[in-house]
Amino acid sequence: MGCFYGIGVGPGKSGLLTLEGYQILQQVQVVIVPVKKVGSHSLAFEIVKPFISTDKTVVEQLYPMSYDQWRLNQAWQANQQEISSYLDEGLDVAFLTLGDPFVYSTYSYIYQFLTKKGYPGTTISGITSFQAASALAGRPLVQGEERLAILSGTDNLDELEQILELFDTVVILKVNRIFAKVYQLLAVKDWLKSSYLVSSVGMLEEQVYSDLSVLAVDEKFPYLTTLIIHKGSDRR
Amino acid sequence: MGCFYGIGVGPGKSGLLTLEGYQILQQVQVVIVPVKKVGSHSLAFEIVKPFISTDKTVVEQLYPMSYDQWRLNQAWQANQQEISSYLDEGLDVAFLTLGDPFVYSTYSYIYQFLTKKGYPGTTISGITSFQAASALAGRPLVQGEERLAILSGTDNLDELEQILELFDTVVILKVNRIFAKVYQLLAVKDWLKSSYLVSSVGMLEEQVYSDLSVLAVDEKFPYLTTLIIHKGSDRR
Repeated sequence: MGCFYGIGVGPGKSGLLTLEGYQILQQVQVVIVPVKKVGSHSLAFEIVKPFISTDKTVVEQLYPMSYDQWRLNQAWQANQQEISSYLDEGLDVAFLTLGDPFVYSTYSYIYQFLTKKGYPGTTISGITSFQAASALAGRPLVQGEERLAILSGTDNLDELEQILELFDTVVILKVNRIFAKVYQLLAVKDWLKSSYLVSSVGMLEEQVYSDLSVLAVDEKFPYLTTLIIHKGSDRR
Repeated sequence: MGCFYGIGVGPGKSGLLTLEGYQILQQVQVVIVPVKKVGSHSLAFEIVKPFISTDKTVVEQLYPMSYDQWRLNQAWQANQQEISSYLDEGLDVAFLTLGDPFVYSTYSYIYQFLTKKGYPGTTISGITSFQAASALAGRPLVQGEERLAILSGTDNLDELEQILELFDTVVILKVNRIFAKVYQLLAVKDWLKSSYLVSSVGMLEEQVYSDLSVLAVDEKFPYLTTLIIHKGSDRR
């Protein structure tokens, strides 16, 4: 039986892959590349492409974004079946994931499904977007006894004010959908100047917006945009 | 003028260093190894030692754990002065840090001090202990719209109950000091079985305590022990 590996490739450039992730990409026979649409670009694959030799079987798997539960189930079952078949043949399979495989990833569900079925699974951590974003901006995430909250932009965040009371640093991943709501709260609290945004971190087009007070409330950003809220101004 | 680099070496094994971290260790002339006591063991140095060629200048710097503010200031000023001197000579300097350089590290203060003085600084993210701990335990940190809180064991956590209401996953780093307090709260809430501890992750002696209900309230763990609290049982 083969082993199922999850490899966190980091947020956007090959230098943030770990040595272990690199090594496992050399060992495995099959590389799974998850995509949202057939034939669509995979950033995770692009990051590690230089490290994948031509003798590997590279398999694109479709994980559609859909509210149609039946369609979703069909796609996921077919994907899990395909991975199981490779593992049953004794082939080792690496599943690529942007950032870290256990922080908001499709991989984590597949991992749970396959390991519950008895397949061996190993997860190789990866650098998340918020780590790389803070490094790029030159602003430490947490120091001393501070508290860090990590939230997703798919969350409606009705308790954001409460969370901001309790935490020193609050990260919101893929913030686009709720940016206006968050912006308004930060404006009231006077935390726009101490917070910042980083879009497409690690990529050629990466950008730091180091002072939110110069942005419009309805500003739009690329999909991979991370908001990092600091309440104090000591991080600038 | 040389460049000041912070390199996150990950939690405990060389495989979790990034390719970029590896590359910068080849480039720099000086490697700073922070220690708490003169001559004491540095795990961060041990992790990357195989990658550091003998022509590098390796400098151990003492960052004492002390409540004596005068003694602390003296030590820190001497260390900053020493790094500045190397940078002034045009030498590139790498400062090693366990985990990630911008998540609870000594490095982040030195970085702020030196970059405010005008020295160029670049931070290379590293895998944190909680990422590696969840990978080792095979339990995803956050999925879907879940919320993740990262706390330090130096925090008294008087608001822990409130935080647990708002968050799905709560990580407490270096939990030893407040373990008994946290344990009692988790017992009341019946979350002992769904939470787990990982000590010395990445090291030979790494250990997963996958069910807290079998532990005693006054149990003691190694210094580098991470508690990961899940409220549901779906992660087991």
